[in-house]
Amino acid sequence: MKKVYLDNAASTPILPEVKEAMLPFLGEVFGNPQSLHDWGDQARMAVDEAREKVAGLIGAEAEDIIFTSGGTESNNLAVKGLALARQGQGKHVVVSAIEHFSVLHSARTLEKWGFEITEVPVDKNGAVNPEDVKKSIRKDTALVSIMHANGEIGTIQPIKEIAAITKELKIPFHTDAVATAGTIPVNVNDLGVDALSLAGSQFYGPKGAGALWVRKGVRIMPLLDGGIQEGGRRGGTENVPGIVGLGKAAEIAREQMSKRISTLTPLRDMLLKELPSRIPHIVVTGHLHNRLPGLASFCVEFIEGEAMLMLLNSKGIAVSSGSACTSKALKASHVLLAIRLSHEIAQGSVLFTLGLDNTKEDIEYVLEMMPPIVERLRQMSPLYAKYVKTSQGGK
Amino acid sequence: MKKVYLDNAASTPILPEVKEAMLPFLGEVFGNPQSLHDWGDQARMAVDEAREKVAGLIGAEAEDIIFTSGGTESNNLAVKGLALARQGQGKHVVVSAIEHFSVLHSARTLEKWGFEITEVPVDKNGAVNPEDVKKSIRKDTALVSIMHANGEIGTIQPIKEIAAITKELKIPFHTDAVATAGTIPVNVNDLGVDALSLAGSQFYGPKGAGALWVRKGVRIMPLLDGGIQEGGRRGGTENVPGIVGLGKAAEIAREQMSKRISTLTPLRDMLLKELPSRIPHIVVTGHLHNRLPGLASFCVEFIEGEAMLMLLNSKGIAVSSGSACTSKALKASHVLLAIRLSHEIAQGSVLFTLGLDNTKEDIEYVLEMMPPIVERLRQMSPLYAKYVKTSQGGK
Repeated sequence: MKKVYLDNAASTPILPEVKEAMLPFLGEVFGNPQSLHDWGDQARMAVDEAREKVAGLIGAEAEDIIFTSGGTESNNLAVKGLALARQGQGKHVVVSAIEHFSVLHSARTLEKWGFEITEVPVDKNGAVNPEDVKKSIRKDTALVSIMHANGEIGTIQPIKEIAAITKELKIPFHTDAVATAGTIPVNVNDLGVDALSLAGSQFYGPKGAGALWVRKGVRIMPLLDGGIQEGGRRGGTENVPGIVGLGKAAEIAREQMSKRISTLTPLRDMLLKELPSRIPHIVVTGHLHNRLPGLASFCVEFIEGEAMLMLLNSKGIAVSSGSACTSKALKASHVLLAIRLSHEIAQGSVLFTLGLDNTKEDIEYVLEMMPPIVERLRQMSPLYAKYVKTSQGGK
Repeated sequence: MKKVYLDNAASTPILPEVKEAMLPFLGEVFGNPQSLHDWGDQARMAVDEAREKVAGLIGAEAEDIIFTSGGTESNNLAVKGLALARQGQGKHVVVSAIEHFSVLHSARTLEKWGFEITEVPVDKNGAVNPEDVKKSIRKDTALVSIMHANGEIGTIQPIKEIAAITKELKIPFHTDAVATAGTIPVNVNDLGVDALSLAGSQFYGPKGAGALWVRKGVRIMPLLDGGIQEGGRRGGTENVPGIVGLGKAAEIAREQMSKRISTLTPLRDMLLKELPSRIPHIVVTGHLHNRLPGLASFCVEFIEGEAMLMLLNSKGIAVSSGSACTSKALKASHVLLAIRLSHEIAQGSVLFTLGLDNTKEDIEYVLEMMPPIVERLRQMSPLYAKYVKTSQGGK
């Protein structure tokens, strides 16, 4: 059977060059980067080199990169660490309604610790209005955290415009760039943010490796207390193979980014255009153009996303119905509810995230397989039966 | 030049079998364990299998294992997570004076959040007296955290006796078993603890992978908020290759443990016996017998540990002068000060941690190389000159 992997938002494969770069650090180069001998020096040099490469991907300085275990840790460190470091000035945090749970749930934890949280809404395309951010900022605001792009609907946010506001008001601004760093151009100075999260498993690097960039001079409280690693901002023995893989993936992403974008975008647009023409009652979620190059997201009315996933899987097609982090929770996505979709429609969410391995044939295969699956599921749906009856009755 | 690595406490090499087990997960098996399709299933099954193996190493049930990014995260999650979950009952935490910084500094963070910390002292061998723990427990004690063995001086603590006390008083008891799990027998039920930390890079597994075991029914607050991974107790995409490597290392450690102990112990004892007979003014630190099988630790008077490290490194020998996590801080170890060594003597700390690759020839090489290095350093030491003058004057 044909195999088509279209769930790169959940995890990308690791590039062979990235694996190659990691292998020595699973073998002969096993020292602890903090050790004062040759074994330690070798490991430390590799970590330093990776730090340069990750910094290079986002136009930053190496010393401002904090390596973490991935996007979730980066976001937890950013939201909790930046807010706690500034709690003397105030205990109010602004986030958007469609942040990843690693940001939203970190904000909930801050609430338990006496912070107040303001959730800025999004429009029906999933875009934050910078004016709404401006209005939500108070005298006691310690942090603003708005994602660069949403991994479920792909909408890219006006980060630069928001940063102009936070800069004027002197509020630290963190952006979760897990869905964008390594995928579209991300430059911390162009964006004007003060902190930025990224994760290796989103751009053909390894799982278990991510980073938080924090602008020089911005104070942050560590989340993992311990040794003096990462300038005292993140304790714990460095995951050397993971960090080296992250560095290599960052280097390659930087080199190949424009080529990747120009390959993925037309494939994405094929899905965005063709699926609605072949399947009735389907809506594209997120902004139609201002979206991630490899992300095509839909809600299919009168079906359950999970059932569709299973049937697509039985045809060799891997997709998701939202964030992998919540896939088994089987709840309507907070993102889809925030763009004003009903619970009913949000249930039919299906998310295609394309990767470097995908071809036009893959997309054609999906376009062929999906309509009969949707039809079959609708035949079993009481809601669809009711809809058909009502609309016929209305004739 | 001969190469002798004796810094296994900083990081062990990865066993070839462990690397082999990890390779597919850096290649064709790249799914996210949370994804609802074949790619996700494959990754999830591998994580489940690793969970069984890690649980097997410590006599636990798989579902009570929380995978983390390593020992530091495990300790942070334990100390902060267990204390915060019980803060309604009281805000007092008991630790020993010689805990790893990931425990001690987590306790400091709790202090900032309104907790009170009691540091139980140790005797001159580095052992905690269970009676001291008993005396330190108050009505508002939320957590006791005492390490299983210290990675700098090797002393193994009377965990079972302490657990008998905490059990009677119904206080959750965490032990940092990073230095022992995979090295000496560790069984959570024999020990009687409620939570236990371990790390892969201590027993020939990968860096970036560790675990916290938490007894069923003991409440813990997550440190990394986010998705529903690890039963909602630790968000973040699972580091599948790291977890698989940790599982494999745990499986092998369990099988080979007694053989490893019987190989390492005589080599360690060679160092403990021979170095003091060849070098004057040297003291063994930690308990002479009740210590980790591969750990030989000393303080050499009238020299600086770091200078000794450099010269040993120039002879191809890798050792440490304490915890790798603090090696570059160049401060006298809190562990050595806690066993009542003077700052002066503590400066001359040297720590040999043996591993599977070490041979009798390695130890003989060290025994040959070290005395002239110590002699050379002492000839440059004003303190030694003063000592010689004083002792001659006293004749």
